Amino acid sequence: MDDLTKTAAENRRKILEALEGAGPFLITFHRKPDGDALGSGLALGLWLEARGKRVEVVSSDGVPDPFGFLPSADRVLTDTPPDILGCTAFVLDTPDAPRAALAEGVLARAALVVNIDHHPDNTNYGDVNLVDASASSVALIIYELLADAGELPADISSLLYVGAMTDTGGFRFRNTDARTLRAAADLVALGASPGDLANAVYGEQPLGRLRLLGKVLSTTETEFDGRVAVSVLTERMKSDAGSTGEDIEGMASFGRLIRGVEVALLLREEDGRIRASLRSKGVVDVNAIACRLGGGGHKAAAGVLLEGPIESARERLLEVVAEAMTREDA
Amino acid sequence: MDDLTKTAAENRRKILEALEGAGPFLITFHRKPDGDALGSGLALGLWLEARGKRVEVVSSDGVPDPFGFLPSADRVLTDTPPDILGCTAFVLDTPDAPRAALAEGVLARAALVVNIDHHPDNTNYGDVNLVDASASSVALIIYELLADAGELPADISSLLYVGAMTDTGGFRFRNTDARTLRAAADLVALGASPGDLANAVYGEQPLGRLRLLGKVLSTTETEFDGRVAVSVLTERMKSDAGSTGEDIEGMASFGRLIRGVEVALLLREEDGRIRASLRSKGVVDVNAIACRLGGGGHKAAAGVLLEGPIESARERLLEVVAEAMTREDA
Repeated sequence: MDDLTKTAAENRRKILEALEGAGPFLITFHRKPDGDALGSGLALGLWLEARGKRVEVVSSDGVPDPFGFLPSADRVLTDTPPDILGCTAFVLDTPDAPRAALAEGVLARAALVVNIDHHPDNTNYGDVNLVDASASSVALIIYELLADAGELPADISSLLYVGAMTDTGGFRFRNTDARTLRAAADLVALGASPGDLANAVYGEQPLGRLRLLGKVLSTTETEFDGRVAVSVLTERMKSDAGSTGEDIEGMASFGRLIRGVEVALLLREEDGRIRASLRSKGVVDVNAIACRLGGGGHKAAAGVLLEGPIESARERLLEVVAEAMTREDA
Repeated sequence: MDDLTKTAAENRRKILEALEGAGPFLITFHRKPDGDALGSGLALGLWLEARGKRVEVVSSDGVPDPFGFLPSADRVLTDTPPDILGCTAFVLDTPDAPRAALAEGVLARAALVVNIDHHPDNTNYGDVNLVDASASSVALIIYELLADAGELPADISSLLYVGAMTDTGGFRFRNTDARTLRAAADLVALGASPGDLANAVYGEQPLGRLRLLGKVLSTTETEFDGRVAVSVLTERMKSDAGSTGEDIEGMASFGRLIRGVEVALLLREEDGRIRASLRSKGVVDVNAIACRLGGGGHKAAAGVLLEGPIESARERLLEVVAEAMTREDA
């Protein structure tokens, strides 16, 4: 065993030890939680509870659509009950402590912070840290941790399946690997229903969202010889579509589906300013582009707030994109 | 072993025996081949060829979009070379001999017809028949047949992965099971790249198609308390979107993504008449609806040609749908 493998094995042992503790336990994850954060957190909650422990799952942003269907989703609290301050806190899928979906100061009061994540830029802020950047989801890490301890019931398997599925874009992103598919197969053998879960996550759109997506797609144009796709979303489009406007996350990515497109941009009106979402297929670093304009994010997904109206924001953004693409080509 | 299992094992043995033959081999599948037909057929072709056999893959409809990227897709012939008439023919994913993508009479002249399929209504038209209706794809059956004979190379693994992926709607349909996901994991371990293959199949849309899809989605309305979705596609929308209009297959299904919708209808202008595509989530039999109007299809997907204009076709169709939904409720 090399040093890194030894450390990982040691951290794994420490986490299993923490799970053996009396509790109570606080489980949380990043703000605006996705399927992996919620699936992993709720799975760990059910697992601890089945062992007679008191557990609270806290998400300051609640449970966003479409994840209300997840087994035990109704248990999620938006505030931390005062009597579990000072407990063992599990923080999942969260690269940096301030991004945890907790009120300020809660994490600092925990007796033990266990940080389980797969973001490569995780700051190792926990007392115990298990950061496996090669894992396609935190659900995969949790599955591998818990699988050794005995057969998992169907509800926990379903939760972990949703995490594994959503963080790989339904097994479509480049992070999909044999390890993920094998875990998914195991979870299905344990009772997760792939068709039902995929339908609940991907197949139950509100009419207003689908209509709004339609309007956004039909505005799409390409620039720079088809390498950049630009779509817009106005307040007017929202009201015409009958959309409540809550669920527009994810629409920024559709431009990437166009043949030849490397970067997809979505410009949307937001409180008098223009929110630009940048999505890359992987080669162009959109974080660098967003940073130049005062925004930020990751290499493949970033955002920035610009002054309106849309047409001038578009122009300004495309100038910086043009520079980045030219550098790319050099 | 019960009788059925014994027969299946016997058929398996006969197929392996056929594969041992000297050849030449003719491989085909159903008309308008999909990812499973092409992936399975090309995989079997490469496998036989690697064993020094002469093989021809014949598809009277060629290789439709987006499957031109498949390894060895350029080998597909639209006509059967005369000198391999009278050979051993493998017919894949084809429930009934007349649906094979061959000119009339070709199959009748084969010395041996091997029928490998997963359609439950397969008519067992082969001299050897391996029909496994519990398999989510024919690629899965072929994988299990070939895996025993030694490690598969990356190109064959990629072809079988595409079959397994596409016939489960990207691992989203109800036929996705542990067996499928385990085979998918094996195929990835053997060299298939899930991200690249998913991107080639699902993520390389022409701009015109995405814009046209946008326009179609934004026309979507629901009827009967949200249980029926209706979308339209006009010639005008096609030209506005810059779509070549070739690739509108599949657009009919999007309405099923709407929460609460049981039946999705797409009405499109076609040579002065109106082509209605009907898609059901599974409960309502749209074939019965289409038949009442002179069309046909399957329970979950059917079509019918109606007199225009769109508005009157819509009205006529909705009347019949209303009757079917009312009977359904009764």
